[in-house]
Amino acid sequence: MASSICKHAAIAPSPTTFRSQKIPIRPVYLIRNGRPSASAAVHCSLLRPEYTPNHIPDPKYVRIFDTTLRDGEQSPGATMTTKEKLDIARQLARLGVDIIEAGFPASSDADFEAVELIAREFANVDSEHVPVICGLARCNKRDIERSWEAVKHARKPRIHTFIATSEIHMQFKLKMTPEQVVEKARSMVAYARSLGCEDVEFSPEDAGRSDREFLYQILGEVIKAGATTLNIPDTVGYTLPSEFGQLIADIKANTPGIENVIISTHCQNDLGLSTANTLAGAYAGARQVEVTINGIGERAGNASLEEVVMAIKCRGEQALGGLYTGINTQHIVMASKMVEEYSGLRIQPHKAIVGANAFAHESGIHQDGMLKHKNTYEIISPEDIGLLRSNESGIVLGKLSGRHALKAKMLELGYDIDGKELDDLFSRFKAVAGNKKNISDDDLVALVSDEVFQPQTVWKLEDVTCGSLGLSTATVKLIHANGDEHISCSVGTGPVDAAYKAVDLVVKVPVTLLEYSLNGVTEGIDAIATTRVLIRGEDNVIATHAYTGESVNRAFSGTGASMDIVISSVRAYVNALNKLLGFKSRLKTEDPNESKVMHTL
Amino acid sequence: MASSICKHAAIAPSPTTFRSQKIPIRPVYLIRNGRPSASAAVHCSLLRPEYTPNHIPDPKYVRIFDTTLRDGEQSPGATMTTKEKLDIARQLARLGVDIIEAGFPASSDADFEAVELIAREFANVDSEHVPVICGLARCNKRDIERSWEAVKHARKPRIHTFIATSEIHMQFKLKMTPEQVVEKARSMVAYARSLGCEDVEFSPEDAGRSDREFLYQILGEVIKAGATTLNIPDTVGYTLPSEFGQLIADIKANTPGIENVIISTHCQNDLGLSTANTLAGAYAGARQVEVTINGIGERAGNASLEEVVMAIKCRGEQALGGLYTGINTQHIVMASKMVEEYSGLRIQPHKAIVGANAFAHESGIHQDGMLKHKNTYEIISPEDIGLLRSNESGIVLGKLSGRHALKAKMLELGYDIDGKELDDLFSRFKAVAGNKKNISDDDLVALVSDEVFQPQTVWKLEDVTCGSLGLSTATVKLIHANGDEHISCSVGTGPVDAAYKAVDLVVKVPVTLLEYSLNGVTEGIDAIATTRVLIRGEDNVIATHAYTGESVNRAFSGTGASMDIVISSVRAYVNALNKLLGFKSRLKTEDPNESKVMHTL
Repeated sequence: MASSICKHAAIAPSPTTFRSQKIPIRPVYLIRNGRPSASAAVHCSLLRPEYTPNHIPDPKYVRIFDTTLRDGEQSPGATMTTKEKLDIARQLARLGVDIIEAGFPASSDADFEAVELIAREFANVDSEHVPVICGLARCNKRDIERSWEAVKHARKPRIHTFIATSEIHMQFKLKMTPEQVVEKARSMVAYARSLGCEDVEFSPEDAGRSDREFLYQILGEVIKAGATTLNIPDTVGYTLPSEFGQLIADIKANTPGIENVIISTHCQNDLGLSTANTLAGAYAGARQVEVTINGIGERAGNASLEEVVMAIKCRGEQALGGLYTGINTQHIVMASKMVEEYSGLRIQPHKAIVGANAFAHESGIHQDGMLKHKNTYEIISPEDIGLLRSNESGIVLGKLSGRHALKAKMLELGYDIDGKELDDLFSRFKAVAGNKKNISDDDLVALVSDEVFQPQTVWKLEDVTCGSLGLSTATVKLIHANGDEHISCSVGTGPVDAAYKAVDLVVKVPVTLLEYSLNGVTEGIDAIATTRVLIRGEDNVIATHAYTGESVNRAFSGTGASMDIVISSVRAYVNALNKLLGFKSRLKTEDPNESKVMHTL
Repeated sequence: MASSICKHAAIAPSPTTFRSQKIPIRPVYLIRNGRPSASAAVHCSLLRPEYTPNHIPDPKYVRIFDTTLRDGEQSPGATMTTKEKLDIARQLARLGVDIIEAGFPASSDADFEAVELIAREFANVDSEHVPVICGLARCNKRDIERSWEAVKHARKPRIHTFIATSEIHMQFKLKMTPEQVVEKARSMVAYARSLGCEDVEFSPEDAGRSDREFLYQILGEVIKAGATTLNIPDTVGYTLPSEFGQLIADIKANTPGIENVIISTHCQNDLGLSTANTLAGAYAGARQVEVTINGIGERAGNASLEEVVMAIKCRGEQALGGLYTGINTQHIVMASKMVEEYSGLRIQPHKAIVGANAFAHESGIHQDGMLKHKNTYEIISPEDIGLLRSNESGIVLGKLSGRHALKAKMLELGYDIDGKELDDLFSRFKAVAGNKKNISDDDLVALVSDEVFQPQTVWKLEDVTCGSLGLSTATVKLIHANGDEHISCSVGTGPVDAAYKAVDLVVKVPVTLLEYSLNGVTEGIDAIATTRVLIRGEDNVIATHAYTGESVNRAFSGTGASMDIVISSVRAYVNALNKLLGFKSRLKTEDPNESKVMHTL
């Protein structure tokens, strides 16, 4: 695949720097052939100890293990395509994440392929930082084999295996005795090592509610069997920070052989305590923390990367014994937006660090008092996390602006676009510029998202017209990947309903619309509106749930952007259908090569 | 105003009950004349120590101080009308909140009136639980006088005054020496007491960054001057739980006279640690915690009531030394929905406790494995917080259902509707039932919200038609409160833009549309869509910001619901305009009685 060198390199703050310097660094996406294609790891030049699975030379360094692609993707409706997962993996590498949990390969063929593709992406990156690529596996041979098959292509592969150790889980879910559980864990860790994997993580699921002595025992056994990282999950999000810190401290003090491995945290957010629990765990001796972008995940989600990382950055020296991470925080905002886009999980305005209001005050745009002495209220500056205030950059675009100005502006915003992508973006930009006086940075980002953050195209929307005088009617024109044009019309309860019914007449895939939402991303009703839909096919697209072992019928999200809400809505629907069709066709494909051609971008 | 007795009374779990009993209690709204009008305090019959401002007989009882109406309303765009504030105050009373901070009376006449109205509402409630009504005031005579004028009507009035005590705030914001700050605080607390207020709370703003010895000194002085509660805010959301707990413990150990007052926490969420900090403060000796519903507030918001309360409920006995609160948690979901509706701040799907996914798994509706042993994953049951699963109640409505069935169903959902409200709801229900086969509970709640959760009507939308073949055009028909009909039409970039321009031609109030969003609340595109808009008038509606002292130009949100997204969008816009016009007309009113008639429902 095409690969290029980014033009901006991140500046490495020393681990003791509390505020990053105000050098205007922006995330740069190099987009070729319709996708970001930067050599992903180029940006990370932070000081970072060399990687050895079971040892960190600097005792104050905390590894960031991101599980957005595995635990985050388990959120209802957050299913992502292979392309989306690869985009996110690249962004995580830019952030400087130490370990990327790329998926659960035994869950489905689609999961396997995504993990394998990400592992290959990080096989031979020419950079000082290459993230570890990790695949999840239950404690059984098949899962571990599948995981190894998928991750072994990476320069630094890891298998993460887990089994429940709390009374309630062993009794009701596993139906195994504690002795059987210990033997299963020990033998499966040894099996993973025997395949050639030198980096094996083990998690006792529901550790927060497990018997303490039993925990020390099983953890000691898996260390002997070759585990290099021991991850302690608070699976039900039930413990308080003091308790979780004590749990980590106790494990550190009482587990035989613990000095030869890394302790890790994995905190769910059911009581809103995941960030605090994670920090308490790190303070008590954990040197890996498992997090997700935006804190997504099942139920109330996981500890969020941005909160944990910024807390360590702001308070590590003063309040956490000098702990630090290797994260280049200026890529946080872009990672957050990308995950919001791909997962379909919108964050609330008061989300810490990355919410729309995190740096806003009710007094509005003219915050003179704030700006004069912004330390009086803000402890993190927007620039620290890569947040651009709207239109604060130099180039202002209008309807007379040309391709060159658009390209320069997009570069300023972090998108390096060329060729057909630039042509397409330019023609859409001109259409918007003809109708709207002020084109904001957010408008442009919405347009580029619509061009770039999309699944493989099976159906493309060419046109939609509708009328709602009396009965709502809509006519749509769709073009198939093979070039065929299809036109249909329908009536409905409103213009969007009519248009969706017309699309259904062409695409002929029975789906249920689970969610529909539309947001004006910028000020004014003449702004570009982004629609997001979530659909589930009636012919199931099945994957296996990691913890419950149940079959999961996946849902697919799609987004579309336009100044006309009907067009925006139909684009979103067609994109969701394309995503679903991509998965469906894979399931029916017999020839694995053919399937791969279709999905390896 | 009309008042009725609720038919369901809350069951009082003993303070040591971890899970509330599974008695199907649902929030009941008694709606008369278009508004909820239940005698607000009837529901709260939990065991709760008697109220004395500076003393709690049971050392394990933690007072819940809700500041949704003051600190929460400071969120960008969260401005609420007096009617909305009163609705929320009633819901907070049902929840069993100990203290309601109703606003900042010196901020604006609108704020003053809302606080006064809420104080009068809780003047003579015939119930064992009457919440304290609190008004904020800066440390100056005028603010304290205004606050007292507004709250003195309450059965239990409180003044809450504050001044900054950190170096950075004293130097840059106040431009005062530490000695001047102590004298100001002391004299203003004494002044508040001299007015006849026996319940005075004092907050040293930015206590988290204040010099420790200085804090002990100023707190000791205000205790001598008559303060009964000392609130310790972590204004910038900067401290970690261990630090905040230590701060409270240090204050408890070193402040002269502290044994005669209540210590309180107020934690911002900038690093995602507000819930953990609040719990750490309570564990260290604070017996009042300041929180908001959904955690709303400026920037990343405050500690959220639902997280703090459920953490204390689930873990108080085991991990927090037996702490408990007087909150009836089964009213949490309805409080959350009401605040989401009125503030316009949508919570994310993975928000702890009240997010849409908090109790959902990717495996979808058929969660057999989950349901069989739900303790394996869920630590709080949905019923504990008053969450109804969709359509789990008995009555199913269809297009043949009559008024009686609708009334029964709405009662089942917690809405007691009669008279004209029922007539209006019924006619809209029939319109929806004609087009949609399955009418879900959520559809009905969306419809009743559209009827009930609305501002005073200046303009009412009668009809809107639009066409988008070629150019988008829309025609709207609006009816003024005086009965006049106005019709206008306009072209636009899309149907909603065209319709909004047509509305502007009639209403003639120059506004900026700040946000626009639309959500399908139920499954299927034939669901009822809810639109939310946020506008700001060009003729400013001004209030004073509590902390910065700046003038704030307020923004107004509006919502609308319909199966047709254009109608839904126009309803939302007209509602936001009505809200803005309500505030504007108040500002122009000379006669205070006239003004009051207009806004006292």
